[in-house]
Amino acid sequence: MINKLYFPCSDNKTKQHAFEAIKAEQKHIGYYGLPEQDTSAITNYCQKIPETVENIVVIGIGGSSLGAKAVYEFIRPVRTLTRRLFFFESTDPVNLTALLHDIVLDKTHFLVISKSGTTVETFAIYKYIYSLHNDPQSYTFITDPGSPLERYAHTIRADVLHLPANVGGRFSVLSTVGLLPLALCGIDIHTLLKGAQSIKESFFNAGYMQETLLNKAAYYAKHHAQYHINCLFAYSESLKYFCEWYVQLWGESLGKHQRHSAFHVGLTPIGLIGPKDQHSFLQLIMEGTRDKSVTFIKIEDFNDHTMISDISLPNLEILDALNGLPFETLINMQCDSVMEALLNEKDIPVDVITIPNTGEYTAGALIFYYELLTSLVGELIDVNTYDQPGVEAGKIILKEKLAAQKG
Amino acid sequence: MINKLYFPCSDNKTKQHAFEAIKAEQKHIGYYGLPEQDTSAITNYCQKIPETVENIVVIGIGGSSLGAKAVYEFIRPVRTLTRRLFFFESTDPVNLTALLHDIVLDKTHFLVISKSGTTVETFAIYKYIYSLHNDPQSYTFITDPGSPLERYAHTIRADVLHLPANVGGRFSVLSTVGLLPLALCGIDIHTLLKGAQSIKESFFNAGYMQETLLNKAAYYAKHHAQYHINCLFAYSESLKYFCEWYVQLWGESLGKHQRHSAFHVGLTPIGLIGPKDQHSFLQLIMEGTRDKSVTFIKIEDFNDHTMISDISLPNLEILDALNGLPFETLINMQCDSVMEALLNEKDIPVDVITIPNTGEYTAGALIFYYELLTSLVGELIDVNTYDQPGVEAGKIILKEKLAAQKG
Repeated sequence: MINKLYFPCSDNKTKQHAFEAIKAEQKHIGYYGLPEQDTSAITNYCQKIPETVENIVVIGIGGSSLGAKAVYEFIRPVRTLTRRLFFFESTDPVNLTALLHDIVLDKTHFLVISKSGTTVETFAIYKYIYSLHNDPQSYTFITDPGSPLERYAHTIRADVLHLPANVGGRFSVLSTVGLLPLALCGIDIHTLLKGAQSIKESFFNAGYMQETLLNKAAYYAKHHAQYHINCLFAYSESLKYFCEWYVQLWGESLGKHQRHSAFHVGLTPIGLIGPKDQHSFLQLIMEGTRDKSVTFIKIEDFNDHTMISDISLPNLEILDALNGLPFETLINMQCDSVMEALLNEKDIPVDVITIPNTGEYTAGALIFYYELLTSLVGELIDVNTYDQPGVEAGKIILKEKLAAQKG
Repeated sequence: MINKLYFPCSDNKTKQHAFEAIKAEQKHIGYYGLPEQDTSAITNYCQKIPETVENIVVIGIGGSSLGAKAVYEFIRPVRTLTRRLFFFESTDPVNLTALLHDIVLDKTHFLVISKSGTTVETFAIYKYIYSLHNDPQSYTFITDPGSPLERYAHTIRADVLHLPANVGGRFSVLSTVGLLPLALCGIDIHTLLKGAQSIKESFFNAGYMQETLLNKAAYYAKHHAQYHINCLFAYSESLKYFCEWYVQLWGESLGKHQRHSAFHVGLTPIGLIGPKDQHSFLQLIMEGTRDKSVTFIKIEDFNDHTMISDISLPNLEILDALNGLPFETLINMQCDSVMEALLNEKDIPVDVITIPNTGEYTAGALIFYYELLTSLVGELIDVNTYDQPGVEAGKIILKEKLAAQKG
């Protein structure tokens, strides 16, 4: 994985500050330790799930689903996996009915994931599904130690696995939350973690990623008042859900009151998929307000070398230049072309991440890269990267409404 | 369809100006006339497609696909349609291979849609598919009169349908571009247009929508320098692709150089789906920079009355308030709760659109509402709403790269 920045390096003092802060954070923020975790408990647990189980369903929302979905959808298109993975994450009844239509309950194992153990969406869905299929052996619960959910699970004698300490939902994909569903589908979680570790080591041990991540984070932080919209423009449909994961990670971590001021700050994440969004969002980047940075992601080897057929269409000879070109070459040329067009504008910060393929190692690297970048930028714009106090107000109002409607 | 605004009305002079400008635009901008069009040619054409055809594939990108996809995905979940509709819109080879895996070519009719008739993505895909299945009768081409694509189609004796004059891609969903694929799948395009017409008449004939749309557009335009990110927060998975259509419409129309200044302006669209994005983007809206307006969309009747089961879970009795509640009631309560939380902040502009259901009439109304709103805001922020000069630079660079690679 290579990350080329087309904007100036930042001053060493800022970078030094950020690096020291992140090094110190490692002691109390749990996600930094995940790449080296012992996964044998997860691997052993997978053996307990009968081979007759064809589907894994995650009942969870936000941090409990986005990470596993990102990795699964990144890897699935080019791999034969052992089981199918579904995500029940909406209280939209039509969506729930449609998802249930796609699975046979007897051949499904459910992972009910809720850090707090009381997430409204998760339990609305769980209650409904449990009433259709009330075999406790078909459910595994993942929650914080001592949560009400853990106590419930014990009463029905279902299995409970724990989130590691001090790992927030949006940083939890490399914990049991993401690893268990992925491992149950045949994804190689060992290699996934190795990929994450490669970025971690490069960053902390003065490797290539240290300078790169520090320069990028410092630039984003220094210019956050101007370039406060950060577009991730990924040239592959397989990165669609990675973009959704990024949006949560970035937006929920970096949209905050500052720690040492009364001000709101916020970096707004936008996920884009190329070339589709060249025909949608690109105009706004090219000619709209200069408030957006753009990170391109390119895949070197799509593991699919389908070529555009070598046929000339009468009256459309202008398109003969496409003939015989592999689609993967074309899509990367499209990415390069848009990148060059943006660079020609001179005032749009651009960088490009080139990943070798869509395998586990790459997925792990990309995840850890973005987690580190988020932590660095959060430190430099003076927010608490790891909380989300802004979502509580709506939850309290909902509770009142639910109580009023009952009473 | 009801639209309640929680922000102040604007001054009459601005609204009068916008209304007069839009009235005048009707003479030369084509989309305004689409609700009243004669659809008999489309309906008759549908009869030509054999009943043995089970799949309709749109080969097109951007304005050629997003509109039909939005309507199809809005209606499909609660309706039994006559055919399945697919969209081949990416040059990602993995995506193309996966889509081809899902259809039988002999039972598929292809609609190749390109306004200019030379869209690179469309023809890369078309060349590949035509080499697999070279029966001209399986293809219909939709393009501007006299385009190179029309001339090509004539050489292979395939049918050609035209886009109406002066209708841009992102405003074309209610023309042949959207209507033909939708009609071929059994969607009632007559009712779709009736829904659009209802908004049009209400707007132009001093109905409810005139005051509402003018107030909203004037507020957005007046405050565009502060509230330059416009979130559409739709509480239903069925509106996911409507959000994508909105993103293109809004971003590509309103991200521009001003007509009478040297400045870049731009309103950035964000599509969000509730309740999922409460666990992702909401934190940033609640506590981030005050640069976002939020429009909620609620559906009154989901046509699916599934209820949360009336079971109490030991140790989770706190969640009993959910028991027996229809999911559609819960999801709308979630929407109301988040809306109230945002309103309590006092400095986030909020409005809510309530639609009765997910049928054709509603889809048409929602489309025309957003098209009118876009035109009004574009007029008031002094941009040419209907062009997209910013996407040309990348296309030119790509052409050069393709030529260099050949030569």
